[in-house]
Amino acid sequence: MAAISPSRRLRRTPFSEGVEAMGAKAYTVYNHMLLATVFRSVEEDYRHLKSAVQVWDVACERQVELRGPDAGKLMKMLTPRDLRGMLPGQCYYMPIVDQTGGMLNDPVAVKLAEDRYWISIADSDLLFWVKGIAHALHMEVLVDEPDVSPLAIQGPKAEELMARVFGDSVRNIRFFRFGWFDFQGRSLVVARSGYSKQGGFEIYVEGSDIGMPLWNALFEAGKDLDVHAGCPNLIERIEGGLLSYGNDMTRANTPHECGLGRFCDTQTAIGCVGRDSLLRVAQDGPVRQIRAIAIEGAPVPGCGAPWPIMAGQDQVGQVTSAAWSPDYETNVAIGMVRMTHWEPYTEVDVLLPEGEVRAATVFGVFWN
Amino acid sequence: MAAISPSRRLRRTPFSEGVEAMGAKAYTVYNHMLLATVFRSVEEDYRHLKSAVQVWDVACERQVELRGPDAGKLMKMLTPRDLRGMLPGQCYYMPIVDQTGGMLNDPVAVKLAEDRYWISIADSDLLFWVKGIAHALHMEVLVDEPDVSPLAIQGPKAEELMARVFGDSVRNIRFFRFGWFDFQGRSLVVARSGYSKQGGFEIYVEGSDIGMPLWNALFEAGKDLDVHAGCPNLIERIEGGLLSYGNDMTRANTPHECGLGRFCDTQTAIGCVGRDSLLRVAQDGPVRQIRAIAIEGAPVPGCGAPWPIMAGQDQVGQVTSAAWSPDYETNVAIGMVRMTHWEPYTEVDVLLPEGEVRAATVFGVFWN
Repeated sequence: MAAISPSRRLRRTPFSEGVEAMGAKAYTVYNHMLLATVFRSVEEDYRHLKSAVQVWDVACERQVELRGPDAGKLMKMLTPRDLRGMLPGQCYYMPIVDQTGGMLNDPVAVKLAEDRYWISIADSDLLFWVKGIAHALHMEVLVDEPDVSPLAIQGPKAEELMARVFGDSVRNIRFFRFGWFDFQGRSLVVARSGYSKQGGFEIYVEGSDIGMPLWNALFEAGKDLDVHAGCPNLIERIEGGLLSYGNDMTRANTPHECGLGRFCDTQTAIGCVGRDSLLRVAQDGPVRQIRAIAIEGAPVPGCGAPWPIMAGQDQVGQVTSAAWSPDYETNVAIGMVRMTHWEPYTEVDVLLPEGEVRAATVFGVFWN
Repeated sequence: MAAISPSRRLRRTPFSEGVEAMGAKAYTVYNHMLLATVFRSVEEDYRHLKSAVQVWDVACERQVELRGPDAGKLMKMLTPRDLRGMLPGQCYYMPIVDQTGGMLNDPVAVKLAEDRYWISIADSDLLFWVKGIAHALHMEVLVDEPDVSPLAIQGPKAEELMARVFGDSVRNIRFFRFGWFDFQGRSLVVARSGYSKQGGFEIYVEGSDIGMPLWNALFEAGKDLDVHAGCPNLIERIEGGLLSYGNDMTRANTPHECGLGRFCDTQTAIGCVGRDSLLRVAQDGPVRQIRAIAIEGAPVPGCGAPWPIMAGQDQVGQVTSAAWSPDYETNVAIGMVRMTHWEPYTEVDVLLPEGEVRAATVFGVFWN
């Protein structure tokens, strides 16, 4: 792996000091911000995530804040998901598309109040899209990136660790709900959510100055729980079918291709951007869709560019994320497969770099 | 330096194969794309850039294409620069600001025709801003990212190399003008421009498939010119005062703070986003501004986060880019300095990481 050159443009986070002290070995860049990818090894991190508890610096999940009388109206324009039933205290995963139905981001929206939302974004400058629309339509809403940096606590012992720092009432937070919890006199949003299937929480740390005090408090409280620094784990997220914007989907894809059709209420979400295009897509269905794919043979390298999925001489899709799974003893992968070959157990070939051809099988469900 | 993890989200370019073969040692991520930062060493690359000719993969300068009857109207909304005199064949550097006058990008616009522009962007998803506005206002314009990847030829021998590949008429291209030139039957935009002060060209390579053929042709033709793979050079760009969006300026800054007031024709650019805010700024002038700063002592480390500029106990600015300059035998730096301390030859202190204090001097002009 090549080195990464430091610059202010690759922003540090309120927790970077802790991440470095814990020995992060590699990084990616996400929303112009550093995101660790490996601490001990991807496999060791994976084992630990499934058995203990990890603290993840996911400050790169930047927030787009909408605040003001038109915040709710603007939110409804932004997503084909029906937000009418959304109450303060809830988190909604919501696809955001352009006028052609192409995915711009797949964030989690956090409803703080009737006139105030955070959109916790994947890797694209969604702020620019939201600001552009709000400005052009003269909407009465402030749109900005606040000083809020999520810290995720993930793994089977996450609840125990959180209870020690925030009190037992965190145990009552339901999935994709949040509450306000006190830390050193500051009231923070704590949600039961996170980018793993091991369960856990995301703390929306408001105010960079309390980043390291909170980081340290968590490590102090969790010593006997074997708490460790971690990060979204490539193997675990593929096993769980957790998609990554920019990897498994881009602006070229509709939500339906990404298996996100259930978040598109095109009949009721009237007035959202891209609705006309999505009505068409919803009616006809997509011609390609995200699938779990098992690739045979030795551990594959990192997927730095899409790998063609072949049926004989014809390309019928592409793999966009892949890793060796120690638990399932196969290479687990996420790919987009054409309708002709997306039925479970369809056998295909995957073209790895340097011309290597591997047998692979399309599955209907992910591993976790 | 930590390693960078490969993923499709950090996009490869049509020239990545060549960049890797030439031994790129480190990368940054720019517009979700890989950009090499070092080949031999930053200093060796710098020497070579100033004496020979380099081929730079700057595909990460993605294009936002505007095409259609409203393209010109939308362009005028996007920038405070007066575009009325811009003709097809011209390139314009143009600040783009939000409604508060905060910088969103500082691209170079390329006017292909009255109804067709490319905006060659710095590191932010300007596409989202432009698409958002165009959609909200129902403008008749297509806004998209085309398959166009700039390749820069920079250095004193750039013209000679270009003439060998594209013919002698490239010599007639004036600064910030472009022409259409043939390569293997494909007509490409070739501009006299680039992110160095050594002179050179940018080829807007349309069609990823001809990326490597062009790359190879340039290296083949330039053997006796000591052509080498290169990249924007940190030392050279600081010496020349070439700003970097995300490093030396962010959304927090106005064009006037960045010394770009001369590109803001707020009296004539009526209807552009942010005009009201910029009128105010133009009248009052900025209270802080970009300056050249020389930092004494041994070579400084990479500037991964702003370094405070101090006058006694008061912070009066920050350094955002810095490097040791072999030619000027000092650390050259770019920073934002408050009005109280921006006069040439003002002496200040710079706080480096780990509490190190360095004497420094503010200058009125850059080195190159």
